[in-house]
Amino acid sequence: MASVPGSVEQGRHVYRFGGGVADGGAGDTDLLGGKGANLAEMAAIGLPVPPGFTISTAMCALYHADCGAFPDTLREEVAGGIAHIAGITGKGFGDAADPLLVSVRSGARASMPGMMDTVLNLGLNDDTVEGLARVSGDERFAWDSYRRFIQMYADVVLDLDHGAFEDALEIAKEDHGVALDTDLDAEDLRELVGTYKRLVREQWGRDFPQDVLDQFWGAIGAVFASWQSDRAKVYRRLHDIPGTWGTAVNVQAMVFGNMGETSATGVAFTRDPSTGERAYYGEYLINAQGEDVVAGIRTPQYLTHAAREKAGARPLSMEEALPDTYAELARVFDLLETHYRDMQDIEFTVQQGTLWMLQTRAGKRTANAALKIAVDMANEGLISRDEAVARVDPAALDQLLHPTLDADAPRTVIAKGLPASPGAASGKVAFDADTAERRAAGGEAVILVRVETSPEDIHGMHAARGILTARGGMTSHAAVVARGMGRPCVSGAGSLAIDAKAGVLRVSGAEVRDGDVLTIDGATGEVMLGEVATVQPELAGDFGTLMAWADDVRRLKVRTNAETPLDCRTARGFGADGIGLCRTEHMFFDAGRITAVRQMILADDAAGRQVALDRLLPEQRGDFATIFEIMAGLPVTIRLLDPPLHEFLPREDAEFQEVAQATGVSVDQLKRRAAELHEFNPMLGHRGCRLGITYPEIYEMQARAIFEAACDVARDTGAAPIPEVMVPLVATRAEFDIIRALIDRVAAAVMVEKSQRLDYLVGTMIELPRAAIKAGQIAEGEGGAGFFSFGTNDLTQTTLGVSRDDAGRFIGAYVDQGIYPKDPFVSLDVEGVGELIRMAAEQGKAVRPDLKLGICGEHGGDPASIAFCEQAGLDYVSASPYRVPIARLAAAQAALKAVRQA
Amino acid sequence: MASVPGSVEQGRHVYRFGGGVADGGAGDTDLLGGKGANLAEMAAIGLPVPPGFTISTAMCALYHADCGAFPDTLREEVAGGIAHIAGITGKGFGDAADPLLVSVRSGARASMPGMMDTVLNLGLNDDTVEGLARVSGDERFAWDSYRRFIQMYADVVLDLDHGAFEDALEIAKEDHGVALDTDLDAEDLRELVGTYKRLVREQWGRDFPQDVLDQFWGAIGAVFASWQSDRAKVYRRLHDIPGTWGTAVNVQAMVFGNMGETSATGVAFTRDPSTGERAYYGEYLINAQGEDVVAGIRTPQYLTHAAREKAGARPLSMEEALPDTYAELARVFDLLETHYRDMQDIEFTVQQGTLWMLQTRAGKRTANAALKIAVDMANEGLISRDEAVARVDPAALDQLLHPTLDADAPRTVIAKGLPASPGAASGKVAFDADTAERRAAGGEAVILVRVETSPEDIHGMHAARGILTARGGMTSHAAVVARGMGRPCVSGAGSLAIDAKAGVLRVSGAEVRDGDVLTIDGATGEVMLGEVATVQPELAGDFGTLMAWADDVRRLKVRTNAETPLDCRTARGFGADGIGLCRTEHMFFDAGRITAVRQMILADDAAGRQVALDRLLPEQRGDFATIFEIMAGLPVTIRLLDPPLHEFLPREDAEFQEVAQATGVSVDQLKRRAAELHEFNPMLGHRGCRLGITYPEIYEMQARAIFEAACDVARDTGAAPIPEVMVPLVATRAEFDIIRALIDRVAAAVMVEKSQRLDYLVGTMIELPRAAIKAGQIAEGEGGAGFFSFGTNDLTQTTLGVSRDDAGRFIGAYVDQGIYPKDPFVSLDVEGVGELIRMAAEQGKAVRPDLKLGICGEHGGDPASIAFCEQAGLDYVSASPYRVPIARLAAAQAALKAVRQA
Repeated sequence: MASVPGSVEQGRHVYRFGGGVADGGAGDTDLLGGKGANLAEMAAIGLPVPPGFTISTAMCALYHADCGAFPDTLREEVAGGIAHIAGITGKGFGDAADPLLVSVRSGARASMPGMMDTVLNLGLNDDTVEGLARVSGDERFAWDSYRRFIQMYADVVLDLDHGAFEDALEIAKEDHGVALDTDLDAEDLRELVGTYKRLVREQWGRDFPQDVLDQFWGAIGAVFASWQSDRAKVYRRLHDIPGTWGTAVNVQAMVFGNMGETSATGVAFTRDPSTGERAYYGEYLINAQGEDVVAGIRTPQYLTHAAREKAGARPLSMEEALPDTYAELARVFDLLETHYRDMQDIEFTVQQGTLWMLQTRAGKRTANAALKIAVDMANEGLISRDEAVARVDPAALDQLLHPTLDADAPRTVIAKGLPASPGAASGKVAFDADTAERRAAGGEAVILVRVETSPEDIHGMHAARGILTARGGMTSHAAVVARGMGRPCVSGAGSLAIDAKAGVLRVSGAEVRDGDVLTIDGATGEVMLGEVATVQPELAGDFGTLMAWADDVRRLKVRTNAETPLDCRTARGFGADGIGLCRTEHMFFDAGRITAVRQMILADDAAGRQVALDRLLPEQRGDFATIFEIMAGLPVTIRLLDPPLHEFLPREDAEFQEVAQATGVSVDQLKRRAAELHEFNPMLGHRGCRLGITYPEIYEMQARAIFEAACDVARDTGAAPIPEVMVPLVATRAEFDIIRALIDRVAAAVMVEKSQRLDYLVGTMIELPRAAIKAGQIAEGEGGAGFFSFGTNDLTQTTLGVSRDDAGRFIGAYVDQGIYPKDPFVSLDVEGVGELIRMAAEQGKAVRPDLKLGICGEHGGDPASIAFCEQAGLDYVSASPYRVPIARLAAAQAALKAVRQA
Repeated sequence: MASVPGSVEQGRHVYRFGGGVADGGAGDTDLLGGKGANLAEMAAIGLPVPPGFTISTAMCALYHADCGAFPDTLREEVAGGIAHIAGITGKGFGDAADPLLVSVRSGARASMPGMMDTVLNLGLNDDTVEGLARVSGDERFAWDSYRRFIQMYADVVLDLDHGAFEDALEIAKEDHGVALDTDLDAEDLRELVGTYKRLVREQWGRDFPQDVLDQFWGAIGAVFASWQSDRAKVYRRLHDIPGTWGTAVNVQAMVFGNMGETSATGVAFTRDPSTGERAYYGEYLINAQGEDVVAGIRTPQYLTHAAREKAGARPLSMEEALPDTYAELARVFDLLETHYRDMQDIEFTVQQGTLWMLQTRAGKRTANAALKIAVDMANEGLISRDEAVARVDPAALDQLLHPTLDADAPRTVIAKGLPASPGAASGKVAFDADTAERRAAGGEAVILVRVETSPEDIHGMHAARGILTARGGMTSHAAVVARGMGRPCVSGAGSLAIDAKAGVLRVSGAEVRDGDVLTIDGATGEVMLGEVATVQPELAGDFGTLMAWADDVRRLKVRTNAETPLDCRTARGFGADGIGLCRTEHMFFDAGRITAVRQMILADDAAGRQVALDRLLPEQRGDFATIFEIMAGLPVTIRLLDPPLHEFLPREDAEFQEVAQATGVSVDQLKRRAAELHEFNPMLGHRGCRLGITYPEIYEMQARAIFEAACDVARDTGAAPIPEVMVPLVATRAEFDIIRALIDRVAAAVMVEKSQRLDYLVGTMIELPRAAIKAGQIAEGEGGAGFFSFGTNDLTQTTLGVSRDDAGRFIGAYVDQGIYPKDPFVSLDVEGVGELIRMAAEQGKAVRPDLKLGICGEHGGDPASIAFCEQAGLDYVSASPYRVPIARLAAAQAALKAVRQA
């Protein structure tokens, strides 16, 4: 509340609109709030807006700073505003002969639906109600209006018990033997008003205010006070809205859609918000007030003839029932869309044949609609292509890239978990990864169901159509890996009782056995019995068009994190500019190799490791050759082995047996060695280049596999790949030097053996704070790193001191309390981690101007994080295959923003 | 090898000394190496030095840069050098009539004992040997010298098989039926020379060089080449000696201590290097060469009469046998000590009654001697008090603060582990912490023996006289905690087979049962059977004097990490300036409380936790009151609960039973809850202020205990303590704000309840990279942190991405390969972690000039890290009690260094 712009403090706080006057416009949302600015704008362009005025957002701050008091100057200004309305309407505020009634509505800079309060029909009292009855010629209408006013005022302004007023209304209906409010006649309502006034006196201790100015100031105060309600505060925290913004108050002459058959009220979109189709879309009700449309007591009617016909509905559309007004409304729709250059969400009221516009704003829309509207408007010439690119929310694209449930298909939801990875999938339940893999190999669709997943399950997750877990959050292993693979996933469905051994899961009375069919919806978190029909996404057309436009403007390259042929092909199909992170360890989990990997890990010495590595070499070489072929012409960054070795360890006795047979070492000895490998904090343990330093033969094998594959592909295809070999978890230049020397040595040897010259880069992950601080040192000079890839997952873990696997226990509380605006593993902590990235990028570029800079890890697919990467001057982001299109669009938007800011 | 100072490249490389000439002096160690500079210095001050010259260290670099070739200019310079020697000695190099023989010795800037090679008697060939025989009148001496020369040259310069020459000598002795080399006569030796020459021809393929210049250049090349030997490289890496320094070569006229009964050779110290007593100390041998003194074939004799008498030895001392030469030597000792202003380590030779000085350098000494010599010399006026302070190695003090084994006591060593915490202790073996505590309470001395220790063992470690573990390195839990407590500890004694259940340990055939007596020596890592007598340290006298001088010059305050009354008193006794880190969690392990702590942790909700916290409150309040009383007048920093809760969890069934009884919750449910608390990376988990954010009632209890105790002590003693409340693991300002508000609220409430005003500070640990980067934000403004304490243990873990508990598997390899100069958990990683500390200190001071800055964690007691803290402008370091004196001295030295540099 401290900072109130000085220009406003002494300036005006009341801004009029309507009747040919507009003291503000659409550009004044900061001062007038969204609703007020748009009312002024509509008035300015000559649309029929009930006259009124807006009390500025700045007054909200002053009001709270002054402990809920209004400055005297405001009273004068408000008097002018009321005079403005009175002048146009010819009615008088508190005038018993022809009373002016007003609505009082909040309106902040950002839309906060349902968060703030509204009072209608203000200006009615025991005298003016009679005047209203006379002037309108409708006594029932007048008393109903008064009754509604008292009820609303008691609730919103006086904060009295809501229920008592509703009870009184129910009793009145019972007393008079009627079912609906509308069946109460004028006399009944007059009685009810008496009851209401008594209720006010009992609960509030004072009489319902008869002075219309008292009513007025009470309402204004209530709107301002509602800005500081707990509800509003929570909403602001969740939506990142500063408390200093404040709300404006809009005071407007009442118009009534409930004054007979030539009156109506409605809401409309200028295009279909669901499909984006260029057709007016909306609902209206004859002889009704706005709240009736929303409340659902009466079924609203279609706006257009075409829509009514399509739905096969009987009640006349507005186009048919009120053709003249409809024509005027359609004219207003076109005018508003052309004026605002966006699809509009509109509220209107028709009072006895006269159209009044109550609100316009940019309409919310589905991802599909956003895409279509943006492309259509650009093609119509209404907006530029850049604007079209800027209009579509990249995160929303995620919905479009995966199969979705057929909206009309029937379903039996048995549980709900977290929407961990989008898309819908059906399949036979498998309770372990091996079964999942076996069934998938047999051509069956499988849903892998686990209490929680571990790296051991990767092959099963890959084989499955979808993944369901009982434990784990949005950043659990299952969620992260599933998103990376583009598999639908529902995680943390806590009500599932899974007994994997018995092959059964129980939930809310249902029992699902191994092999039974389940459907999961990763967009909603729902788990359903049996198969529910899905709809495949359509990625051509508007999607392709918008992506092409995005590619025209983006500066950042978008690579992908991929290592399987399927993922590489998917990513290439989604337009990836290369591979930014090929995690060689993922290749180690393959059923055909894991025994050799275990043999390597459990070996007691280098010789023992070498035997296993010799078995792995041809496998890895094959992997890399396939990847180089698929990604022909594009850069491929390969990270050497990174995770702590015990991730690969056998767990079950049978697995130990297998390794024992393969190695001739006893199970007991293997178990002892496995126990030795236990780590207290594996994330900070013996992993990354530390493995390469202590067991150089592992990295030697990997380097050899890379260069042999590259030479072979160069020979076979004539197009030499340019491998970018990445050293993980570097903290010091010395580590990089040692590993680089090893890589260079192997590269030289392979090139001699294969008589083939290859270009390649050696670079490093920057994923430890020390590496970021000493980045200049690491990149410097001839043997320095040729590229940096910011491993923001680990960098976040170490910079914040938070383990991603363990954060679940407190990160929710942290986000709720605003300590981090979002889960820092989902959206980059720009202030902290981002600062280190900026530092490292600067230092690196200073010593090596051609240093390639990229980011890998989950953040590479997060639009906010991508915007940061653009600002920080990185060269590329790397995202999981299914997030590549999102990243392309986000990169384009970031580039546009950079241009705007420059 | 790249950087050779330009001034030298074209300048001279040969520097003469002796015979009234000295081209250099003691200040020229960079150019001449240590030995060469001191030879020149001794020549310059008129001492009898055999004439010679030094080839500069710069030539070493040129030699290697030019692939092992010498510039022509050097040949000319060397000719001048040889002429210098010839001129003074009147002998000719290669002159068959009166041959000049020289020694060729390496001599780098820093002493590298045994790393580099030496050649003696160079200049002998088939002709000159006859000349030497004639001139010396001793044919046997001449042929023995030639024999020794060929043997040494073949080994050092020609790199031939050492063993073959030794075998030939043995065969010669057998052939002539003698036992000792000295029993071979001239003819025998002449034959042996023939055999040696044949061996050279066979192995080298060429004849032994007869040209004395060939001999000479071969020897020079060998010395330079030895600089790049693997042995030298390893030594340099271990001792942080840059490879660019190079070695010098010293060429000197030979003098012989083996030319009869008026010849001798010896080594001496100007004071006793063991006790520091002001008495000449040394050994000599009549008619011997230097290597004979070292080789141990003959038993050397005492230098002084007094020493001989004291030892009850028979062979005459030099003072008695060669009184005139001894008198001259004593004069030289005094002169050198006065000149160099330090105790000197000297080598000399007497050739037929003439004294020759071969080397002088500052003598190595024990910690006790260093202390006494520094204090004595300052009192003698030889050096200033500041110099005395600068002279003593702080790390060496550690030996002085603990009991040591009586050197004369007999012992049976049964195992050897790592010297993890200094001091010696004997006691009855206890295999678990509870037994240790129970026996100690009964007044028995206990040695706690565990496979490895965990936080659960703290009370037992505290109760024990010493700790012995079979597993864990120098930075294992046992080692770190033991050092902190000042308990002797031997860790990682891998040969111990401990069966705690059976109450027995087995090692090398011995069996030690529960209750048997063991002795451990934490300074050597030795484990001994039974009780071995120990000697208590003497801390008054010189120690107290030097500490007082140190306190006069140091700027940094030295606080302590302590929480028990004993530790607080110990630290205060050692001169601590306050408590820098009171780890409240250590108080939680007390047997009387752990059940309440467990009850708190395992509670399902805040109400359940509160019941347990209410039990803990009076206990914590009592702890704090005691600490405030002991530390009266000094600041006390109290850290709120930091470690992950599962550290406190029950493990054994009996412990679960106890908690179940106390809480009325079933064991099963407790186990389930305990399992839920499991973390993958507890170091990065739910700990530190994250506990305070999610379970505010825990920090509320602790804050209440602190302020209630402070108020009580203020009331009872009239001296109000100034608590410094420290929030751990802060990453963001928001966290600090939330916890600070909680602390301020509790403080205000307690002060009202107790009607007492208290000053206090609220500050934070800076132990996460994010906190360091955002330090300005955290300290800024009214509610900002009042102090920063750098928690360098955790900051090292997160900045480097290394878990201290897991580092053992690779940190050894890392230090060996020079990736980190020292274990970064022992000595601060100044380049990386230090950079973050500097950043944070600067940012913090910029926004809050009175911000107190300190460091806690193991590094607070490490001299190199303390030097960094001085440079970084911190206000204090905090060290474990037994390291407080070390820190005081290190702080003083750092301050002196800062003054010198300014």
